[in-house]
Amino acid sequence: MSSHHIVREKQEPALIIANGEACSFELLGQLLEWSPFVVVLDQAIYRVMELGIKVDVLLGDFDVNIDLTEIEKSQYPIEIIHTPDQEKTDLEKAFEMLITRGFPAVNVVWATGRRADHSITNMTSIIRYKSKLRIVLIDDYSVIYPLLPTPNVFEKWFAKGSPISLIPVGTVTGIRTGNLLYKLDNEELKLGYRTGSSNEAASDGIVSVSYEKGDLLVMECHD
Amino acid sequence: MSSHHIVREKQEPALIIANGEACSFELLGQLLEWSPFVVVLDQAIYRVMELGIKVDVLLGDFDVNIDLTEIEKSQYPIEIIHTPDQEKTDLEKAFEMLITRGFPAVNVVWATGRRADHSITNMTSIIRYKSKLRIVLIDDYSVIYPLLPTPNVFEKWFAKGSPISLIPVGTVTGIRTGNLLYKLDNEELKLGYRTGSSNEAASDGIVSVSYEKGDLLVMECHD
Repeated sequence: MSSHHIVREKQEPALIIANGEACSFELLGQLLEWSPFVVVLDQAIYRVMELGIKVDVLLGDFDVNIDLTEIEKSQYPIEIIHTPDQEKTDLEKAFEMLITRGFPAVNVVWATGRRADHSITNMTSIIRYKSKLRIVLIDDYSVIYPLLPTPNVFEKWFAKGSPISLIPVGTVTGIRTGNLLYKLDNEELKLGYRTGSSNEAASDGIVSVSYEKGDLLVMECHD
Repeated sequence: MSSHHIVREKQEPALIIANGEACSFELLGQLLEWSPFVVVLDQAIYRVMELGIKVDVLLGDFDVNIDLTEIEKSQYPIEIIHTPDQEKTDLEKAFEMLITRGFPAVNVVWATGRRADHSITNMTSIIRYKSKLRIVLIDDYSVIYPLLPTPNVFEKWFAKGSPISLIPVGTVTGIRTGNLLYKLDNEELKLGYRTGSSNEAASDGIVSVSYEKGDLLVMECHD
């Protein structure tokens, strides 16, 4: 008789399931395939349990009714982290917990859609952690991640015509791009005034992006 | 025999139907009730026509397949405005058209949800028009509008506990609030670093918000 142990080396990104709009079950299934360390935020636990998903950590301020005893029973063993601090969102607290525990990367689902205030806060707050944790927000239409400033250069292969949006969180200066249809050459983008939304790969090949100062997000989106 | 004419005095806000996630038909019905001047953006026209809605203006760059002759026939009379400029979004071009024509206000639906790049660009680009057009973005979870800086003071009645998020587009300084649970007294908010998301009315009554410099959005959201 053999026993099967899943040994987690913290090589695979952790997975945070937040409390916004659910993504397709197919996308969630793909992310769960490699048995990531799963962190669920607060009330989302009920929707996650309905899907029959095993969770490692439940984190939240639990200020709305939640039956932790019941959840512990059905998800045993589960770690429950109570984070009453009102200055940070549960998502930010989850990032900090993963950083403390040495995770290098995390994928985040259910963090966008529905409430616009949560959605824009989640999308933009990831920039604060960009040098400590590789964060990717994923939903059915979008893949969102922050870039690191110079001397780092972002390079990734895209097929011609792939939509690539550069979204500045605030003002971003010294942006240079390679192989984008609308080329930026040491230019500035400013949220609300001039963004690099709806750009695209000019040809099959490596797209490159670098910038000097600020906080820049890449969004790979499709309809 | 009497004839019934709808006389539009441009008192009622116009309505823009953008190309993001559709809102509930109930919400759309409420906004259509007063026979507003209806502007539809590009491909959204097909989804709008399926709902049997009469449109006044169709605006877009029409760079994806669209049968304008067919649309003109089924929506006659309809004004078709071709806006090939790639530097602005169709939504921005629609705002500018309404400003040129003297409209004081507009409600916008289907501008959020789905693609994150379009969503964040639409939510934040409304700040550029704040002194010329009263813009309100509405979806099933959110009502979003920009505030004007000092000497203007935003004042509106809310029931105790109503969620009110203050979202800075970039950095906003000198924010003062009255009757909010988490009070701001000449403070600064910065998108991605410190936002005023998930605040709420402290008691039944007038909530007030003023700020010195920057671009501040109010988001009234619910789950």
